[in-house]
Amino acid sequence: MGIVPGKTLGGKIILKTFSSRLTAAVRRCGNPVVVGLDPRRERLPAPLQPASEDQVTLADSYRDFCQAVIDVVAPLVPAVKPQSAFFEQLGPAGLDALAQTIHYAREKELLVILDGKRNDIGSTAMAYAQGYLAGPASPWQADALTVSPYLGDESLQPFLQTAVASGTGIFVLVKTSNPGGGMFQDLEVHDLPLYHHVAKHVESLAAQSVDASGYGAAGAVVGATYPEQLTEMRRVMPHSWILVPGFGSQGATARDVAGAFAPDGLGAVVNSSRGIIFAHSLPEYRDQFGDQRWQQAVEAATRQMIEELRSATSAGRL
Amino acid sequence: MGIVPGKTLGGKIILKTFSSRLTAAVRRCGNPVVVGLDPRRERLPAPLQPASEDQVTLADSYRDFCQAVIDVVAPLVPAVKPQSAFFEQLGPAGLDALAQTIHYAREKELLVILDGKRNDIGSTAMAYAQGYLAGPASPWQADALTVSPYLGDESLQPFLQTAVASGTGIFVLVKTSNPGGGMFQDLEVHDLPLYHHVAKHVESLAAQSVDASGYGAAGAVVGATYPEQLTEMRRVMPHSWILVPGFGSQGATARDVAGAFAPDGLGAVVNSSRGIIFAHSLPEYRDQFGDQRWQQAVEAATRQMIEELRSATSAGRL
Repeated sequence: MGIVPGKTLGGKIILKTFSSRLTAAVRRCGNPVVVGLDPRRERLPAPLQPASEDQVTLADSYRDFCQAVIDVVAPLVPAVKPQSAFFEQLGPAGLDALAQTIHYAREKELLVILDGKRNDIGSTAMAYAQGYLAGPASPWQADALTVSPYLGDESLQPFLQTAVASGTGIFVLVKTSNPGGGMFQDLEVHDLPLYHHVAKHVESLAAQSVDASGYGAAGAVVGATYPEQLTEMRRVMPHSWILVPGFGSQGATARDVAGAFAPDGLGAVVNSSRGIIFAHSLPEYRDQFGDQRWQQAVEAATRQMIEELRSATSAGRL
Repeated sequence: MGIVPGKTLGGKIILKTFSSRLTAAVRRCGNPVVVGLDPRRERLPAPLQPASEDQVTLADSYRDFCQAVIDVVAPLVPAVKPQSAFFEQLGPAGLDALAQTIHYAREKELLVILDGKRNDIGSTAMAYAQGYLAGPASPWQADALTVSPYLGDESLQPFLQTAVASGTGIFVLVKTSNPGGGMFQDLEVHDLPLYHHVAKHVESLAAQSVDASGYGAAGAVVGATYPEQLTEMRRVMPHSWILVPGFGSQGATARDVAGAFAPDGLGAVVNSSRGIIFAHSLPEYRDQFGDQRWQQAVEAATRQMIEELRSATSAGRL
């Protein structure tokens, strides 16, 4: 994948949009699985435990671990989602590891959704957008970025405009998967929860940027832990890809996320992080694989998630 | 300042809280000015324009520029606020420059409020908190961090707990300074705008962590561009420091921010970024200083802002 200039038409370079690239990747893989790259020191398999506690050594372990996960999942799934927080936690060395991880994933033809939940006022939002979403002009070269809606449309436009111009995308936080996420998101405004108003705005951004795939450059984050709301959000945002976190270790099942999909199996991608990357330490895989064969545990957990989604959702029609 | 273990009392190390350190710094300087470090390639003074466009050279220019600003303002003001977006825009090299900028500011005894507007679900929020706010255990060692409220209390608690344990602080986005910030923030919930509900929650976090200074570890961001709301927010959040962006180049005057202060001149800090760091190119300073004497323009603009705040707000009583 990556952001490659497409065919030239009459001398004009045609960029492929993010939604068309995501559609193609999901169709090629036959599943909507996103593998979350959330490295944590204490959960790395024994062979990748760092030899010392200094940040550079730790960051190298994170990079090696993520690249080894990518080696396993690249033939199987359309996308990975590195969680910026865990890399930032290690200081500048961690950000080097993040950049190398993104680069490696793109080389392996995975789409990269960077989970940074960024945003700021307009001109500063543009700096984030240029840094992450400007394609070859961006040092990070993410294919998509998660962004926060609290600062309003004015703060989302720089991301959207950069995404449209560069063939990248955004996923706006609408309804998050954490148990306490409703504190503000569920507050009632004109008889509807706040997140519903945010969703309507995301749909307007998606509709502005819709392409032949039927979806726009603005997607939404809606947690798998709210099955009814997923169905509602699919209806409210017909032109938005929905990124669904919370599968697996946060408790949601394939059945819970079924409502996020369109009838043709498109429209949603489902993320699992710990349930895949740390599968070697989970009860269902530990005895069979353990720390030494941790990559086989990653593969087994990925294949299991793919099967579950294909049998319990319209993704089976892909 | 910096996070230095205070006196030991019966063998127990007493950390100074962020609010007590901020109170002491504001009193020592006699003003509440925060200088925003928002480096932008095209606005750097001529002597600091990078020799080439590669990211490492650009990042070195940002670091040199910020350190030269710090040299000027460290004797004058209590704090600086680096804007993470502009450093992130340069990729990993930019983050190296950010780390060096923070380190340099702390060496010069400035408090560092990192403007990153971070947040995520609980366990991931903890990674951000540990990375930025854990004092000597944190690679970044910010004194405070701006955070977004959209994910609710569960996402704010890891930041607050880390801040309290480490003598650092947070500033939660309540009412942002951008013209379009009201899109969601002003939506009415039970007859009050959403930001009012966020403010009440920030006050509860501040009240949980209040110390002898009368303020807690949770502050709020309220834009200078909304003078009436500043007065209201001061009343709603009596235990929260208010970080006020939007002064100067965003249009707000010293009179506009008066409502953010308590009668004793404490309780608020006011940020100016472009109006200070790029003063050399502003009409009021350009002819007198220009690019070559840009640091003198920074000093003149800082002193001007200090005077304006001291004459038009209760900060004059400091």
